[in-house]
Formats: sequence, C-alpha cells, structure tokens
Amino acid sequence: MELEFLGTGAGVPGKFRNVTSVALKLLDERNSIWLFDVGEGTQQQILRTTIKPRKIDKIFITHLHGDHLFGLPGLLSSRSFQGGESELVIYGPKGIRQFVQTAMRVSDSHLSYPIRFVELGDEGVIFEDAKFKVSFLRLDHRIESVGYRIVEKSHPGQLQVEKLKEMHIPSGPVYGQLKRGEKVMLDDGRQIDGQDFLGAPQPGRIVTILGDTRKTKNSFLLAQNADVLVHESTFAKNESKLARNYYHSTNVQAASIAKEAHVRRLILTHISARYTGKMANELQKQAQTVFKATKVVHDFDIINVPLR
Amino acid sequence: MELEFLGTGAGVPGKFRNVTSVALKLLDERNSIWLFDVGEGTQQQILRTTIKPRKIDKIFITHLHGDHLFGLPGLLSSRSFQGGESELVIYGPKGIRQFVQTAMRVSDSHLSYPIRFVELGDEGVIFEDAKFKVSFLRLDHRIESVGYRIVEKSHPGQLQVEKLKEMHIPSGPVYGQLKRGEKVMLDDGRQIDGQDFLGAPQPGRIVTILGDTRKTKNSFLLAQNADVLVHESTFAKNESKLARNYYHSTNVQAASIAKEAHVRRLILTHISARYTGKMANELQKQAQTVFKATKVVHDFDIINVPLR
Ligand SMILES: [Zn+2]
Ligand SMILES: [Zn+2]
Repeated sequence: MELEFLGTGAGVPGKFRNVTSVALKLLDERNSIWLFDVGEGTQQQILRTTIKPRKIDKIFITHLHGDHLFGLPGLLSSRSFQGGESELVIYGPKGIRQFVQTAMRVSDSHLSYPIRFVELGDEGVIFEDAKFKVSFLRLDHRIESVGYRIVEKSHPGQLQVEKLKEMHIPSGPVYGQLKRGEKVMLDDGRQIDGQDFLGAPQPGRIVTILGDTRKTKNSFLLAQNADVLVHESTFAKNESKLARNYYHSTNVQAASIAKEAHVRRLILTHISARYTGKMANELQKQAQTVFKATKVVHDFDIINVPLR
Repeated sequence: MELEFLGTGAGVPGKFRNVTSVALKLLDERNSIWLFDVGEGTQQQILRTTIKPRKIDKIFITHLHGDHLFGLPGLLSSRSFQGGESELVIYGPKGIRQFVQTAMRVSDSHLSYPIRFVELGDEGVIFEDAKFKVSFLRLDHRIESVGYRIVEKSHPGQLQVEKLKEMHIPSGPVYGQLKRGEKVMLDDGRQIDGQDFLGAPQPGRIVTILGDTRKTKNSFLLAQNADVLVHESTFAKNESKLARNYYHSTNVQAASIAKEAHVRRLILTHISARYTGKMANELQKQAQTVFKATKVVHDFDIINVPLR
C-alpha cells in the first residue's frame, strides 16, 4: 500500500506543483489503484509514473472545485484509449455525474468501459468488500467538501505450522481449511479447530484523505488512529485568519488534528505556489513543533504505508 | 505576429507532445493573443512560456473532441485568478457554451471577467475590425470541425516625407492627416491630397488554422495564398486509408493542399505519439517532396509570420 502524490498544489497549477491528485496504490492488496481528486493535468503527471490508467477502478472526488476536478474527463478518455474495459466507479458530491456526462456528450466520447456514479448522500460507509471499507464525512469548505477514511480489514493470523507439525498433522489441503479458521476432521478421526492454530490477526491500515476544509470536528473523527492522514495546508501558522476567510486550514491546524486523532503520520499537501522551496520546508518545520511525524509532500513523492 | 505551439500531439497527451493548442500572438498588432484549441494541460504549457493568460482575448475552438477542448475550464479559471478583467470571446461549434457553463457552474467558479460565446452557424466571417477579419468553413471530420482563416488587412503605405519636404510643406499635425490619406488645405492656400504622398500599401498576412479533417475542398479554400497554413498530420504518406477511416489526413495530403493553395509555409501538427523523434523527421521529409516549405512542429516551437 502506497500513496503517490500526482499533484500537491493549491488553486492553480504552478511550475513546480500541479493541482491536486493522489493515488492510493493497492497493487498487492487488490491489484488496483484508487485516485483521490483529479486536477487538470493528472493524466500527464501519470505519464511520468508507473501507474496504468486501466488499473484505476475507483475515483473519489472530495469536492467539485476545478483544481480537484478538471482533469477527470481527459483521464477517463485516456483510460479508454489505453484499453480499459473494467467498470470504473466515481464517488463525489452531487454534480459530478452531470459534469462528466456533459463533457463526454459534448466531446462525443465513447468510452470502452462502463462508469458507475455514486453521488454522496448520507454520511457513512460508501464501499465495503472483504478487504476494505470506505466511509466519508462532510467537512467545512466554501462548497460541499468531504473527507474519506479508508480502512483495511484486519489480516487473519498466520497458520502456526510448527504447532501442527508437533501434533503430527500432515500438510495437505487440510492446512488451507485450518488457515481459514475452519473446523476439520482428520483421517485419524481427530477433530481440530483452525482457530486454535492461528496467530493473532494483524490489524489493517487506515488512510484518511481530506478535501479542502477549515479545521473541523469531522476531520478529527475521520483521522482517528489513522496510519496516514493526508491534509491540506493552504496557509501557514500565522495565517489562521486568512485560512478561515478562505475556508482552508493552516499547517499547524492540520498538525493539531493529527495529534488529537493519534495518527501515525501526517502528510501536508495543497501547498500554495507562494510557498516555494525553502518556505515549504518552513511549513513542515512549523507543523512539526505540534506533530513530529509531519511531511510536506512534493509532486511524485511516494509514501509507503506499512503494516504495524 | 507569431504562432506559438503549446501542444502538437494527437488524441491523448504523450511524454513529448501535449494535446492540441496553438497561440497566435498579435502583440505588436493589437497587444493580444488568440488561442486556437485548448487541450488539457494548456495552462500548464503556458506556464513555460511568456504568454500572459489575461492577454488572451479570443479563443477559437475547431471542434469539440476532448484533446482540443478539455483544458478550457482550467484556463478560464487561471485567467480569472491572474486578474483578467477584459471580456473573453469564445468561438466554437454548438455545444461549447454548454460545456463551459456546466464546468463553471458545477465547480462554483466565479470568473472576474465576462465571457461571450459565439457558436458557429452559417459559414463565413465571424469577426472583423479595422485590422483583422476571421472567417471559417466546415471541414470533414467525425464530428463538426472547422478551419479558421485569419486575414490581416493591408497596412496603408508610408508617408513620403522627403517628397513633402521638397515641396516645402512644413511638418506638423497636417502630416497626420496626409498619412491617413486625407485632403488638406495648407496655410498658404495650396490644396493637397494625402493619397499622392503615400507609398504602396503593404499587404497584410494570412494565417489558416484547420481543425482535424480529411482532405477536403474547404481546406484548400481557407488556405488560399496564406502566409502560414497549420494543418493536422495524424498519419503518414502510406496510411491514407487509415486517415480516411479515422477522418484524418496524412502529411502528404496536407502538403498537396499547401501546394495547390499557394501558401508560403506549411506547419504540420497533431502528430501521433507513434511518430517519435526520427519518425517525425521522416513525416517532414515525406511532405517536403510535395511541398518544400513544410515543417513538423514540436511543443513550444515559435513560428514568426513576417510581412511580405
Ligand atoms: Zn483546492
Ligand atoms: Zn484531435
């Protein structure tokens, strides 16, 4: 599980930061990639990575501001051009469907795959399968903006092979059943329970990716115990008034959320073009005084999310 | 007068060519820039040039395929962000207004300047002022696609100051009147006609920029005696069947239009990513066997359009 930052700028593209997009790479976990926001030029950024557009099977939009959205039609077209055939699911605030459908209709685009739209209604779980659960809450921005919490379910414990061998239980298909925690009867008549031969389950990872927002309680709720919190950082420590007026956060507000929510690592993105090289470092240092494990990311940075 | 190529690729962006956009820089002529097509990422390309988005006062879209269109909403937003206040006029096939308005509404974008849309109806002149005339004709593509012919009006002849001095006509405001070709009465009672003191008018320049198209008669009509013809070149010499099936042109078809229409210079663009470095050179050489003054352009190439 990795996060790859495709665009880390705010508002308009700059020479050094493209507008917002981040890929959650779940290649080992489900051989797919989820994209969070698609600012203009995201498909061009992807050309400079190893990401294959056809592996993107879910796109989550946090809010419909152009710097998080305008790359979507082009990305959809390229995914088609490059032979994507599997369904793509697009989650986002109401209006996302109309935007995409208008762009596709006006440009006479015929995609090689179906799109399913999930326009966000009641807060809560919007996706769940055997391995992952995704939920969202609304944040505090000028327009509807949400944060997503991606929870990996815990991995079942390892099968304790040594213990089985000590009991002279021969390997074979029965090991598979035991690994799944099932009860089995052996050829010699013994009944055993897989649960007795499994190590402790390994907790899954939690990644929280927030849209643009003022400091707000839902950010804290979404970030609870996350392995990684991705938070905007449009303004610096001394600009909390500006941040409030423009419905954004400062680096230090983000850090305090990270601290209160006991996250393992805070990633600051959505960096204004006003903060060039050294000043971006300064943003990081200021935040670190509140929450040590903070990093300001740049375009193409990759953040590994290890199991605990 | 210069053409600056912001994107010279076809269909989808590649590592070396972005999708289509070309700027006609009329800085000396009217202190403004006209953009022809706005593929995704055009605003990012502009960041690497000296072009100021607020100087763009007209955008002409040749057709609504995504590779010519999807950069428009982002560019409009950036022009606003960078303080553009003057009206912007957008010309294009029917649907352009709905596309832009949907993108602006859904993203809650409030631009700092007014947009006027001119959706293309009857073929012919769509803009004319004292210095320029722009007309369009429809071409032959899978969807409606047009070509634009930009005609600069002829420059009035220079005032022949030496001749006036020989006749002992003193300089002063009267020179201005004579320069405009007016008749004036001098203080000494002599009546003279400005027309008698003007050199030959200097013909204006003609630039023809075509959308994607098969070889078609209207391309030829639009290109008549142009100083520069900008033509797509999606396919190579031996691929005329493919070109026909996909509603595109080969390099050699473009060259034959240039030759028949007696243009001064042919610029080939809309180059497929299949044609890398040397092969793009080959496209140029093939076309040159039919029309010598042919150039395959790359992103950021600037073509000067001199007076004759
Ligand atoms: Zn934003
Ligand atoms: Zn095209």
